[in-house]
Amino acid sequence: MVNHTPLGGVMKTKSVRPRAQCLAQGVDSQASSLSQSIHVCSVSFQLCKSVGGERGCMNDLKSMIVKLLMFVDKLFYWDWKDEQDLLLAAAYVSDAQYNRNVPFETSPQAIRFYYFYNHWTMQVATYFFICVDLSLALFEEPALFPLPFLATSIAEVLCLTAFFGRLVHFAKVTPQVVFWKDTKNICIVVTIVLTLIDLIIYGSLEAVNIHSVRWSRVLRPVFLINFPESRQIRRAFRSIRNTLPDILYVFLLFMFSVLMFSLMALKLFGDRGLKTVEGSPYFTNILEIAFELYVLVTTANSPDVMMPAYDFNWWYSLYFITYVIINTYIFMSVFLAVVYNNYRKHLKNEIRKLVYLKRHKMMEAFNILKVKVGTEFVVEEAQWKRLAQVVAPDISSSHLELLLRISDEGQKGHVDKMNFLRLADLLNIRVIAVNIKRHPLEAWVPRVYQSSASLWVQKMVRHRAFVWVYDIIILINAIFIALDERNPFIAYAEWLFLSLYIIEILLKLYTYEPRAYFGRRQFWNWFDVLIIIAALVATVANTTIQSARKYNSQQILDIVLILRILRLLRVIVSIQRFRVIVTTLINIGPTMLTFGGLVLVVYYVFAIIGMEVFHGKVRFFDPNFTTPDAPVCGNPALKDSAFARSRYCKNNFNDLASAFVVLMELTVVNQWHVVAGGFALVTHQAAKLYFIGFHIVVVILIVNIFIAFILEAFFVAYSLEKSEVETAIEKKIQELGVGIQEEDVQDGKLIDNVDAKDGGFSGDDGDNKRKALKGLYFRIASKKYRTVDALLQQMFESEIAPEDEGPSLDEILNSSPSDIYPKTPSFENSA
Amino acid sequence: MVNHTPLGGVMKTKSVRPRAQCLAQGVDSQASSLSQSIHVCSVSFQLCKSVGGERGCMNDLKSMIVKLLMFVDKLFYWDWKDEQDLLLAAAYVSDAQYNRNVPFETSPQAIRFYYFYNHWTMQVATYFFICVDLSLALFEEPALFPLPFLATSIAEVLCLTAFFGRLVHFAKVTPQVVFWKDTKNICIVVTIVLTLIDLIIYGSLEAVNIHSVRWSRVLRPVFLINFPESRQIRRAFRSIRNTLPDILYVFLLFMFSVLMFSLMALKLFGDRGLKTVEGSPYFTNILEIAFELYVLVTTANSPDVMMPAYDFNWWYSLYFITYVIINTYIFMSVFLAVVYNNYRKHLKNEIRKLVYLKRHKMMEAFNILKVKVGTEFVVEEAQWKRLAQVVAPDISSSHLELLLRISDEGQKGHVDKMNFLRLADLLNIRVIAVNIKRHPLEAWVPRVYQSSASLWVQKMVRHRAFVWVYDIIILINAIFIALDERNPFIAYAEWLFLSLYIIEILLKLYTYEPRAYFGRRQFWNWFDVLIIIAALVATVANTTIQSARKYNSQQILDIVLILRILRLLRVIVSIQRFRVIVTTLINIGPTMLTFGGLVLVVYYVFAIIGMEVFHGKVRFFDPNFTTPDAPVCGNPALKDSAFARSRYCKNNFNDLASAFVVLMELTVVNQWHVVAGGFALVTHQAAKLYFIGFHIVVVILIVNIFIAFILEAFFVAYSLEKSEVETAIEKKIQELGVGIQEEDVQDGKLIDNVDAKDGGFSGDDGDNKRKALKGLYFRIASKKYRTVDALLQQMFESEIAPEDEGPSLDEILNSSPSDIYPKTPSFENSA
Repeated sequence: MVNHTPLGGVMKTKSVRPRAQCLAQGVDSQASSLSQSIHVCSVSFQLCKSVGGERGCMNDLKSMIVKLLMFVDKLFYWDWKDEQDLLLAAAYVSDAQYNRNVPFETSPQAIRFYYFYNHWTMQVATYFFICVDLSLALFEEPALFPLPFLATSIAEVLCLTAFFGRLVHFAKVTPQVVFWKDTKNICIVVTIVLTLIDLIIYGSLEAVNIHSVRWSRVLRPVFLINFPESRQIRRAFRSIRNTLPDILYVFLLFMFSVLMFSLMALKLFGDRGLKTVEGSPYFTNILEIAFELYVLVTTANSPDVMMPAYDFNWWYSLYFITYVIINTYIFMSVFLAVVYNNYRKHLKNEIRKLVYLKRHKMMEAFNILKVKVGTEFVVEEAQWKRLAQVVAPDISSSHLELLLRISDEGQKGHVDKMNFLRLADLLNIRVIAVNIKRHPLEAWVPRVYQSSASLWVQKMVRHRAFVWVYDIIILINAIFIALDERNPFIAYAEWLFLSLYIIEILLKLYTYEPRAYFGRRQFWNWFDVLIIIAALVATVANTTIQSARKYNSQQILDIVLILRILRLLRVIVSIQRFRVIVTTLINIGPTMLTFGGLVLVVYYVFAIIGMEVFHGKVRFFDPNFTTPDAPVCGNPALKDSAFARSRYCKNNFNDLASAFVVLMELTVVNQWHVVAGGFALVTHQAAKLYFIGFHIVVVILIVNIFIAFILEAFFVAYSLEKSEVETAIEKKIQELGVGIQEEDVQDGKLIDNVDAKDGGFSGDDGDNKRKALKGLYFRIASKKYRTVDALLQQMFESEIAPEDEGPSLDEILNSSPSDIYPKTPSFENSA
Repeated sequence: MVNHTPLGGVMKTKSVRPRAQCLAQGVDSQASSLSQSIHVCSVSFQLCKSVGGERGCMNDLKSMIVKLLMFVDKLFYWDWKDEQDLLLAAAYVSDAQYNRNVPFETSPQAIRFYYFYNHWTMQVATYFFICVDLSLALFEEPALFPLPFLATSIAEVLCLTAFFGRLVHFAKVTPQVVFWKDTKNICIVVTIVLTLIDLIIYGSLEAVNIHSVRWSRVLRPVFLINFPESRQIRRAFRSIRNTLPDILYVFLLFMFSVLMFSLMALKLFGDRGLKTVEGSPYFTNILEIAFELYVLVTTANSPDVMMPAYDFNWWYSLYFITYVIINTYIFMSVFLAVVYNNYRKHLKNEIRKLVYLKRHKMMEAFNILKVKVGTEFVVEEAQWKRLAQVVAPDISSSHLELLLRISDEGQKGHVDKMNFLRLADLLNIRVIAVNIKRHPLEAWVPRVYQSSASLWVQKMVRHRAFVWVYDIIILINAIFIALDERNPFIAYAEWLFLSLYIIEILLKLYTYEPRAYFGRRQFWNWFDVLIIIAALVATVANTTIQSARKYNSQQILDIVLILRILRLLRVIVSIQRFRVIVTTLINIGPTMLTFGGLVLVVYYVFAIIGMEVFHGKVRFFDPNFTTPDAPVCGNPALKDSAFARSRYCKNNFNDLASAFVVLMELTVVNQWHVVAGGFALVTHQAAKLYFIGFHIVVVILIVNIFIAFILEAFFVAYSLEKSEVETAIEKKIQELGVGIQEEDVQDGKLIDNVDAKDGGFSGDDGDNKRKALKGLYFRIASKKYRTVDALLQQMFESEIAPEDEGPSLDEILNSSPSDIYPKTPSFENSA
């Protein structure tokens, strides 16, 4: 894990390395280390006896035994204690780095359990079981891929066992009191129990051939929400919950306004005897009017609902215009404003709390490791380094050295409190060590590579015109794609373009250092090469199949087509402004996934309910399959309905995938009233409430929060100044003369080198430091946010003064209920 | 205008009053004042002669003549100068108060012209002519109300003359150099000339019966935009213009994405031989695909465009879902983010500039009026009061006294610079002087009014339950309205409810002081009474007509119905949370009118273009009028089109009103592709560009700016702390013990009393002050923003330190081109 230096002499046992080794091997190594010392002692005693006579030896032995006893004492007390402390401190720093707020016991066993709990394999396993559990709906009736009930129920029980195991693991880590106070855990336990009950009831009824409802399936997203890893989704839900009271009054006022207008419409248009386009009476029933006007708010029936009245009299259009201005434009904007305002307010509170907790955890870590030097408490350099290595095992030694230089500015051999508190932030900043290397061809065949022809080629490739030429080629390619493919000339052109692209990549690899070209951050180079190779493979495969069987494989052809068109995306790279926008979008991408999770949860719940209620009511028939029922989607109730006329038969709830597509269409809003109307016809008018509910939850709440998030993220991206810690690193990099301008890197001349093994040095003597930093250059990959929380924190952290240690832990925690842990027991060595 | 105290003695001529009188009568009064003085002198000389003998009189006369000469000198120099200065300073303060940035000459004549220029009658006249000019389109071919060309052209020439006159007036006020540098003025001149040319060409062609295009009509909104009064609209346009460069790149990327997806759709679906619901080939033409996908971004054809591919294969829905997520959700949010971000940035700059200019103007005013007292320059109290009275002639003396107390905190008899600079802000704050009065009935028939029965009635009306009872009555009324009206019982119930409401009003008037009940701020009381009286009148009128002619007048019936339903709005008043939301909406209402102006301009231009291009292509036939052309809107090209099938015939451009309705429907977005498709069928496919252009301008730009504005306004409203100046006034009001809690006022016990004549005192001696303030109480109507600018300034003013005098005028003006005036010539008495 860390230093694998062989064990030193007896007197060195107390030095840094064995402790580091002990750390690596865990607490169990204490015993072996002790027996080794005793063995060394006995060996030296025998050596002494054979060399210096009995008496001197006895004295030596005496003093040696005293020393040994002292050492054993120290070893057992200090070293073992030391390892424990280091692990505990590292756990705190790691939690601070990743913003984990899990309260864990501080006993040695619990800490090791906690490390195991946080291990990535455990998290991946949890997510795997959550995915399996959620996807079970694909195989249960109504199923996309039907499986017998036994199979799905066994899979579900397996998942439940896994969740229970995870929970038990968590219970081992966290104090009992805390565990049972946490609603998350109670939620999971209750859900597990309920699911088991449901499974048993459903299974026994199924055995006697009675079909009942698998109601517990609605609860499945509870697992996704309530495991500690889903902080972001929980936060989004909390954000929604906090917004509800404020939005409720606006919503009531909005509904009041809709009802007022409905009443007015009933009185104004009800007795006119007007007809809709479909020939049904226009605005005669107050409930129907209210529904139509609610739909008008979503604009889905926009001019149609107005046309009969407008045809009758020009002035009636004013009624609808007033309605749209008040309800669609003003009220919907107010909804967005309320949601956005609350989102910001609560996010700010949560992030402030997170920042305070982070600082608190770093203080705990400091208090564990501090020693007194002069008048102030500090952490010694060696201790600091070991801590950093435990927290970030993959850190390169050069990177670690850089961080140390920043933290220990005066090179005093220790890190003071202020600098220590920054460690978690420092570790969160991606510093890339770059290493300028020569092209391998230059090393292998220098004469050829440096010849004038070769240099000319390199100059040409580096020239701006090279990019332009290829941009033009891409555009010509786009035109060729748009043209008819059956023309053989155009089919051959495809090969030409493919070879042109391959030549481009080869030329670039010839000119630029290959490892630099395929650097970790060179997203677009990777994109280029992968797309071209995939297109090449797919085209070859397709041609082979075609010539062998005179038949185009539809799937492969589709893939070839998509790849061919994705190639055109490369034009974006050439235009700086486009690249900036795309980079911003890619950066906020991970955070958008939070909303993906949120939407998944809501979709899943609505899909399960929809499948239970609307399953089988509407069926889709293949166009070739001509039954008389096909035009009415297999349900006579749909005769002459807008649903059947628009051929929406495939918009049904007959399996999970179809349900998700319908919900997506409802989210896009347009024509949702047709879908709602269709399902109301085949069941009951009250079914419209399901669709209205979905609209309120997804469009009014979630989509608005999504928009609020994008707005906020863009504002931050626009005005983002590098955070203080980042600036400190950059300053240090510049001071040390190992900085690199971003532009140089973009030229592709440099290679990423974050691998610790490739780092310049592995010794830890001070003299080596300068040497180690010599061949390396650093730059900050500041445009990337390492964690989702980091972006959110950057949004607000600037508003909190760095000196501010915040309120006491109790105050932080009492400010509002959330997933932050209560006060942990105090540590022996805390101040 | 101000003090009408009669002229004092000779030695008092220099005192405040005559000067104030001179001010009231203008500069012309100087001569009469002089002749009066001479007359007084000669009278006193004769008196002297008759009393004290020739010699003494001669000495007296000598000294008197010397004095007189000195006085004349002073009168001509000081007094006349003084009036000029005061007028000039008042012009500056007034400009600062209303944020006018018109550069005016400082010659006496120009200042008087400037006062006349700013007079409300002139502004109303200008807007009247703008309205007439814009509404001419209603009467010109294609007309809603056709008028001969001669009539409309004469009206237009009249309007142009008025605009030209206004411009000439402006030219008299402003320096020549400035006038011709201002693009606004050049725009107006050019538009006038172009309109005249167009009128002449069109008129002469019309005379020989050739129809041409009245192209200059598109230019008419130029007048609305470019007159100095339309600052807000201009600012909104500038905001859009500034946003364009940023949005352009996002838009290009967005179009690139749409084209990429179009190409992919062509390849994926083009060869499948799929059919749309209407039976036309699906996704075979790249241009049609691009249009369909653009429409999908607006969600207008949401599931329909997907259905054929989705019916063919489930997996193809992923293509559309990806498309919608990228282009509808992400790109549209990015548009909003970019527009919002730029809107804030530029608004901030503009408001900062405005605030600096305001301060600058106040400094100019201060420099004109300042006198040295001790070591610092100040403005004397009398001077300050006269200035305030010139700037705000309607100010009540008690209000003025209050402002003076705030500005002259130490009661030193003069106002220092810091406090003087606040004058414009102080005048912008609405302070309401309230006067507690007894109920008139209490004065007239105290015994009856104070009887136990009467007191019981008053107590009952004041009780909370009284409100609840009437809320319940309103709800029952709502149910009755919803029920069938032809039932005679329900028709009678209407009379019952009406009388119940009238009784409520009478009871309230009995309990509360009537003048308090109808106070200026009692919006909801006014609303109540007006609605009830109107409903009473309309119901009576309807019943009379009905019984006389056995016939319901449709118009009156509609009005009765609407009034009856509007009554239900009163429920909102009872619920505090609703009232808050409604108040916020009403407060930002005036600023929303800016967007009304903006939308009007864009609509007008698009409507005129649309009328020229699409006029007569689509016709609406009355349902009773059955020609074979009626189902295809009079145009065979529309046969079998979605346009005709949806009966959109009345969505045409055959007159201005219809065009506006169509544009409104296009703004709401839904079904816009059907309208666009219809007009493309009757003209050319290129006509779709008109509709796409409208969508980009109105929906992507203006609606987003509108949303940005609402968001910003709501955030300000949520977090608005009273501005510093307001707090100062409030503090003073509390200090003086003349404050009133808002709640008291809402009880309706108090009467608004802002009328200067009703104010406590008219004398101006210091001793009266305390007395004057005694009977009066003040409160701040802080929730109202007096001007649109005030709200915008409050949004950002807090960010500028009050001491900050800002950059030099040149710096302010050079920061970006706008309608701020260049450096005015310096004044003789400026520091």
